[in-house]
Amino acid sequence: MNSNTFGTAFCLTTFGESHGAAIGGVIDGCPAGILLDKSLIENELERRKSGKNNAMSTRKEPDAVEFLSGLFEGRTTGTPIAFLIRNKDAKTSDYENIKNVFRPSHADFTYQEKYGIRDYAGGGRGSARTLLPCVVAGAIAKQILASQGIEIASSVVQIGEEKSEGFSNDEIERILSRFRDERDTVGAVVRGTIKNVPVGLGEPAFMKFHAVLAQAMMSINAAKGFEIGEGFNAAGMRGSVCNDEFVNDGGRIHTKTNHSGGVQGGITNGEDVVFNVAFKPIPSVMQPQQTVDIQGNPTTLEIQGRHDVCVVPRVVPMVEALAAMVTLDFILLKKCNKI
Amino acid sequence: MNSNTFGTAFCLTTFGESHGAAIGGVIDGCPAGILLDKSLIENELERRKSGKNNAMSTRKEPDAVEFLSGLFEGRTTGTPIAFLIRNKDAKTSDYENIKNVFRPSHADFTYQEKYGIRDYAGGGRGSARTLLPCVVAGAIAKQILASQGIEIASSVVQIGEEKSEGFSNDEIERILSRFRDERDTVGAVVRGTIKNVPVGLGEPAFMKFHAVLAQAMMSINAAKGFEIGEGFNAAGMRGSVCNDEFVNDGGRIHTKTNHSGGVQGGITNGEDVVFNVAFKPIPSVMQPQQTVDIQGNPTTLEIQGRHDVCVVPRVVPMVEALAAMVTLDFILLKKCNKI
Amino acid sequence: MNSNTFGTAFCLTTFGESHGAAIGGVIDGCPAGILLDKSLIENELERRKSGKNNAMSTRKEPDAVEFLSGLFEGRTTGTPIAFLIRNKDAKTSDYENIKNVFRPSHADFTYQEKYGIRDYAGGGRGSARTLLPCVVAGAIAKQILASQGIEIASSVVQIGEEKSEGFSNDEIERILSRFRDERDTVGAVVRGTIKNVPVGLGEPAFMKFHAVLAQAMMSINAAKGFEIGEGFNAAGMRGSVCNDEFVNDGGRIHTKTNHSGGVQGGITNGEDVVFNVAFKPIPSVMQPQQTVDIQGNPTTLEIQGRHDVCVVPRVVPMVEALAAMVTLDFILLKKCNKI
Amino acid sequence: MNSNTFGTAFCLTTFGESHGAAIGGVIDGCPAGILLDKSLIENELERRKSGKNNAMSTRKEPDAVEFLSGLFEGRTTGTPIAFLIRNKDAKTSDYENIKNVFRPSHADFTYQEKYGIRDYAGGGRGSARTLLPCVVAGAIAKQILASQGIEIASSVVQIGEEKSEGFSNDEIERILSRFRDERDTVGAVVRGTIKNVPVGLGEPAFMKFHAVLAQAMMSINAAKGFEIGEGFNAAGMRGSVCNDEFVNDGGRIHTKTNHSGGVQGGITNGEDVVFNVAFKPIPSVMQPQQTVDIQGNPTTLEIQGRHDVCVVPRVVPMVEALAAMVTLDFILLKKCNKI
Repeated sequence: MNSNTFGTAFCLTTFGESHGAAIGGVIDGCPAGILLDKSLIENELERRKSGKNNAMSTRKEPDAVEFLSGLFEGRTTGTPIAFLIRNKDAKTSDYENIKNVFRPSHADFTYQEKYGIRDYAGGGRGSARTLLPCVVAGAIAKQILASQGIEIASSVVQIGEEKSEGFSNDEIERILSRFRDERDTVGAVVRGTIKNVPVGLGEPAFMKFHAVLAQAMMSINAAKGFEIGEGFNAAGMRGSVCNDEFVNDGGRIHTKTNHSGGVQGGITNGEDVVFNVAFKPIPSVMQPQQTVDIQGNPTTLEIQGRHDVCVVPRVVPMVEALAAMVTLDFILLKKCNKI
Repeated sequence: MNSNTFGTAFCLTTFGESHGAAIGGVIDGCPAGILLDKSLIENELERRKSGKNNAMSTRKEPDAVEFLSGLFEGRTTGTPIAFLIRNKDAKTSDYENIKNVFRPSHADFTYQEKYGIRDYAGGGRGSARTLLPCVVAGAIAKQILASQGIEIASSVVQIGEEKSEGFSNDEIERILSRFRDERDTVGAVVRGTIKNVPVGLGEPAFMKFHAVLAQAMMSINAAKGFEIGEGFNAAGMRGSVCNDEFVNDGGRIHTKTNHSGGVQGGITNGEDVVFNVAFKPIPSVMQPQQTVDIQGNPTTLEIQGRHDVCVVPRVVPMVEALAAMVTLDFILLKKCNKI
Repeated sequence: MNSNTFGTAFCLTTFGESHGAAIGGVIDGCPAGILLDKSLIENELERRKSGKNNAMSTRKEPDAVEFLSGLFEGRTTGTPIAFLIRNKDAKTSDYENIKNVFRPSHADFTYQEKYGIRDYAGGGRGSARTLLPCVVAGAIAKQILASQGIEIASSVVQIGEEKSEGFSNDEIERILSRFRDERDTVGAVVRGTIKNVPVGLGEPAFMKFHAVLAQAMMSINAAKGFEIGEGFNAAGMRGSVCNDEFVNDGGRIHTKTNHSGGVQGGITNGEDVVFNVAFKPIPSVMQPQQTVDIQGNPTTLEIQGRHDVCVVPRVVPMVEALAAMVTLDFILLKKCNKI
Repeated sequence: MNSNTFGTAFCLTTFGESHGAAIGGVIDGCPAGILLDKSLIENELERRKSGKNNAMSTRKEPDAVEFLSGLFEGRTTGTPIAFLIRNKDAKTSDYENIKNVFRPSHADFTYQEKYGIRDYAGGGRGSARTLLPCVVAGAIAKQILASQGIEIASSVVQIGEEKSEGFSNDEIERILSRFRDERDTVGAVVRGTIKNVPVGLGEPAFMKFHAVLAQAMMSINAAKGFEIGEGFNAAGMRGSVCNDEFVNDGGRIHTKTNHSGGVQGGITNGEDVVFNVAFKPIPSVMQPQQTVDIQGNPTTLEIQGRHDVCVVPRVVPMVEALAAMVTLDFILLKKCNKI
């Protein structure tokens, strides 16, 4: 029922499991005539893979993306852009021990119950790896947005109980190593900022800019919260403080403050769109956990292999990618507001 | 482009402005053969109107809902259920003073810029009143859910800086009166709980239960944040603490804790779905505010009339209504998971 | 599931039964700022009601349309335009004799089986009257198209075995009166022509201009066939004859012939879009018919009251209306093809 | 904007150009737990490739389909089923001569005008080869339908001016060879029949069974007409003749005749769904043709290589495939009609 498709004018359909043949996507509705810079796409995938914020090199290693359609002599043709990323030769046999066990706070139990069958290897469709196609589509969207002067930025503003206006990579690594040493994992908050947004993006009543952005962000694995502007903080504020006063700044109307986070009545007002996404700790802790198996028998689970300690820094380009897709989508939709 | 439609199988299309002829909606996809109890619908509208949590009486006053189609001898027929609520004889002339002024943190500026025209009376399409159709559709959804044993509950857990596990009406009134006296407004947090949810609701990857729920909640006027389960609190937690251990409770697999808020991998796991929605203060403060007019000239705005001090308690049935719509929608969609 | 909604950018949701309170619709996505000429809408409804091709007068009788939203000072605001047409005081009791009988070639049996309940009065949701909202939406679309120089025309090219390049009203009346005298009904073919169509309307692969047009036309009650350009005739042709040679006509590329009917590869080529819609005879013949009742018992049905003899001329404005909606929709969608 | 996606519950998104890297699709919404018989899929592709009605062997040659996701141990998992078919090493250089020329009645001109760019090799996205993914999805749908006792059949009932109740392969070959000798092409009509259809498929008002079926069929390259039941013939009939009398056949209500083609009021009535699709002659005739180039200069085009003379027999499995997809989609949607 198209639940694996996101977007209205600029649409991405994703497919793939963690350990299947490939993960990929189909972008339908990408404007025609855009000369794609594939190195920008590789850069984003590299950021996602390595967790570096600025990839120094664009190595042509996996996750190398293969484009199958929709491009002609390097330009978009307006037809669907399909692409895939091959999964490395993962052995399903490595997952025999979780085949019949429901890992706590993973999607094992819910998929099994919903479909009566599940691809357990590497988490199957529930793996964070299945979001790679968003990084690709987001990189394309970013490139188109950049041509309009729009920029997507992000920062890590909370890891565990530590908060910041934006941790450096070194700080992130320092904090995470502590949890890694304790064989535990930790949650985080990522802040996204969309700069130079045109006024008028977002559609009433159910496609408000921030409502669709919320849906996008909550689609990311481990996301548990979304807020825009003052967000939950606004619940504690007074109107006389929270309101954003309009001012005339040399002929351009804008707001003196930006408690709204760039959106009023669901429509962008030209200020920066600022939002936060909260992520829970990665559930794969390196400690014995009590759970049940597929027959409901109690069992102790010990997760093998090397796992991330936190969704950051690798989730950061994902947040940017989805924000870029949402923004481009609304730019296209806005064209239909007038004849 | 259907931005005023919400839902996939159980769909609501809404229409109407605050001071237009009527506000209403069309429900497409309501299952056939349901005997509608209209008093339950009136009750919800009354709760929304009076802000009472339990309406004592079902007065047949405005907002009286008129059903136009889709019912036969009191039962749903499977065809679209259209309904409307007439707006009382509001005088557009009352709004002459805001006709050319952009009220801070309202949708005036963004609608004007987006469409080049706006119905300014009472906030037009940007008014919270335009969510009334959700209350009607939600009341119908609730009735169907109740027949399946599913219940939607809610409570007010924060007003300004005061927090609670659920304020009583008297407590709410006491807090709000303080802000009213100061001619100011205040934000709040509403908690929703969906009880007795079947396992398996929600569709990967972009129609995760909580992703669609987030979109729904962020569509409510003044909503600035959404979280499920531990939400933003999860960012500060360790995996070893946040994970929900599976246990076998007399043959039924469930989780010992519910940090996940009833959703794992985007799909309900049978535990209560628990979520919070943060609302900013109502922007109509009874104090002079600096702003600009439609030509960009600085001006001082003094809002007239009587306005609410806070979205609670009136937004509470709205939160429940949208939660009910989302839940019913996913129950219908789940039928398609297997042949 | 939104099956009562048509269109992607310019969307109409319809509701209502033949003998319910009202029939109406909600238009979502109508461009903002259009000054609506309501007399044009009344004219189309009058054409549909009287079967006249050119309404001489615009009588303010039923079916008078009431607009509920989306207009401000006569102009579209970009928000949903809801409207309704009240049904006259039809007495459900008049339909007691068909309450438990399945009329041959009507929707009685299929609705009953599908939903387990049906509004039998006047055919309920299956009545041709439920298409009135398309006439309203189509009249709005026509007005917007006219501002772009695009015109929708139509003619009746076949009634029973008689064919023409376009029957006059008098000719239509003459033919139909013959069948009326014989207490029988008859089928017909209506030809639609969309003139001055821009090049580039229609979207591959499943939203080809003529594929969506076909869906639209086949949604009209009693429609049994659709063809574009040479249509079924093309099956009997050779490529060397059927191909449309491109020529340069004073700088504008167009085709010497128009066997394609204005569409190549699913996209308009700038020539007139020409299509035919075949309608079966109206099933309400004034003769005794054998059928079964709701228990499956054989029975003889004698239909009471006055019924049309043929869908023409009243269906003609319906064909035009849907063609206008499709054309406007694709004009809006085309805006998204390039950034 | 998702124009390359078809279906509501059982959705296919297609991608690919004739001479790009690959052609493929993503099926979203396939029910979980189905054990796929890949040989049935290969069979259908072979029928499409060779034009044989009953493939004797299932050769593992191109067009070999590679599945990328959505299957686990041979069964569908409920997640997206992606697949691709590699294009053989077609040389784009072979198409230099049509690079700048608009072939008559092809999609060259319209794609160029719409997008400002086009992949001209082999017709790009406009090639009939881009419908291969429908054959794959249709084969899967057929297999699921077969488990419900539903069968899709088809026959060629007209080629040029010759008509039949169903030509044999030999007859088809005999007729086509005549046109091949004359270096010309010819049109055809294909009849599809859906047998053992459950009562109640199709959704009012715009997703009537035959309206969606019409959209599907008109999406096939070269399709110019669609009709159901008596179709265009019904325009010449009287109601007293065309009506389908209901009878009770041993407890099952059905119709004595099937002029309706299995659909009444847009909903299947349990009789066979019978429809015709008319196709124009393939535009690639082996004769010199007058046309213009991309600058609008008159030029003579001589098409090289070997081309089909007629869409039949190769289009036949395509008609069946789309009919199967539509039928399965409506079976899934019907599950939502009641709670």
